[in-house]
Amino acid sequence: EHQDSPKPSKVQELCVYEINERDRGSPAYLRLSGKTENCLGDLVPFSNKLYSGDLEKRIGITSGLCVLIQHVPEKKGDRYEAIYSFYFGDYGHISVQGPYLTYQDTFLAVTGGSGIFEGVQGKVKLQQLVFPFKLFYTFYLKGIPDLPALLTGKPVPPSPSVEPSPAAKATQPHASIPNFTN
Amino acid sequence: EHQDSPKPSKVQELCVYEINERDRGSPAYLRLSGKTENCLGDLVPFSNKLYSGDLEKRIGITSGLCVLIQHVPEKKGDRYEAIYSFYFGDYGHISVQGPYLTYQDTFLAVTGGSGIFEGVQGKVKLQQLVFPFKLFYTFYLKGIPDLPALLTGKPVPPSPSVEPSPAAKATQPHASIPNFTN
Amino acid sequence: EHQDSPKPSKVQELCVYEINERDRGSPAYLRLSGKTENCLGDLVPFSNKLYSGDLEKRIGITSGLCVLIQHVPEKKGDRYEAIYSFYFGDYGHISVQGPYLTYQDTFLAVTGGSGIFEGVQGKVKLQQLVFPFKLFYTFYLKGIPDLPALLTGKPVPPSPSVEPSPAAKATQPHASIPNFTN
Repeated sequence: EHQDSPKPSKVQELCVYEINERDRGSPAYLRLSGKTENCLGDLVPFSNKLYSGDLEKRIGITSGLCVLIQHVPEKKGDRYEAIYSFYFGDYGHISVQGPYLTYQDTFLAVTGGSGIFEGVQGKVKLQQLVFPFKLFYTFYLKGIPDLPALLTGKPVPPSPSVEPSPAAKATQPHASIPNFTN
Repeated sequence: EHQDSPKPSKVQELCVYEINERDRGSPAYLRLSGKTENCLGDLVPFSNKLYSGDLEKRIGITSGLCVLIQHVPEKKGDRYEAIYSFYFGDYGHISVQGPYLTYQDTFLAVTGGSGIFEGVQGKVKLQQLVFPFKLFYTFYLKGIPDLPALLTGKPVPPSPSVEPSPAAKATQPHASIPNFTN
Repeated sequence: EHQDSPKPSKVQELCVYEINERDRGSPAYLRLSGKTENCLGDLVPFSNKLYSGDLEKRIGITSGLCVLIQHVPEKKGDRYEAIYSFYFGDYGHISVQGPYLTYQDTFLAVTGGSGIFEGVQGKVKLQQLVFPFKLFYTFYLKGIPDLPALLTGKPVPPSPSVEPSPAAKATQPHASIPNFTN
């Protein structure tokens, strides 16, 4: 047993893009409610690709489960309870839980992490750019050492037309983080 | 990046009622085990209404998933692993995970939060009043600023006969928190 | 409301064995993808037995859900997102989330806890010894009081052939922790 240095209390921002390139068989919409309309009882396991906020690096993947809570006809969308993780290759992962609304930005809770994210606390803002294929996240993280420069390049402003660099899409070594999760 | 004030270390109590008014199609008991008796393999997505401990305010909803772990015949009940969130309108949300036993009070872990609950730590006591329609929760929360007075009215002592005020049930503006989750 | 003592910042290690003795109907592999091969869409609720690292005490159970994310043919295995808890009888529980790879050790995030684990932070190393029946975990825990001696006996080095003591397997009182979870 040893004493740790005191926990850093500053807030660090981390931006990532989650993109569904339709090559992972995701999402798996499980219509377990048996209804034709989205309904409580439906479950949606998913896994998409993650890119750095500057879109120059392939980072890894997301993976987890969305629980359909409510179809919201007046918003032409749905409320989900989302329980998932963001994988950052050798850097570790961040787990989150909270609301995913298909019609509105939300904040989810950061529930924990591993690697450089061990002991992390905070929240993450989810912004949907192209439903359900392109999302932009801004993490507000506390309790961890300074983030590596590879993850904190200047983010491309989120818009529906953003695309990862061709090198990042091709997961070229200079355009991926170490042992990116795939 | 900025420095935050030091984390408050005091414990704050927060009481809420979760009530199933049978108008949300919840729970969705998914008998995926294929057995006639409750059994590992069954999943139970759910979403109920949340009221303040004084039963004077509609707060929001719960939403999440119960995983049936074990039917316990000698207790005439079941053990679930519960993974869900409590939504508090504009105030944000609290995510929890832990045991839900249909025959006994339990404590669950607070795993994170957003809004005024960002960075929260602690636990929550679950007391069942009328299975599975009426539950009382006492949160023990650390690491967050003082809770707003709207949430911390003197709780009505939990009993099977408690009911929200008619104004809260009708979600009248003076009997709801700001932008209560629905 | 009261002031707590400052949070301990030292890291405490805690080792446990998770063993599937095939008497709990676990796991329940739900092939909801409808594919013959493991595939996104499959869900795996599970619950196994927990023993102390020295294999002299029955502790409790694990319980939770694995979400199949990806079949990885080149590793002859699978990637899961795992969301579960470790139950320690009267001592409380620890909730975790993160990667479970059937072909490689991983680290998961500790997301919270109750009882003596209230407010816990940290990570846990998952080592598979006999797929999917025997696993060894090393928790690295922060923010909690000193662990009880019953849980911190010298661990038996992990290997495929380890077995709990017969007394622990038989849940004899001297070979179980107080009110072990069952």
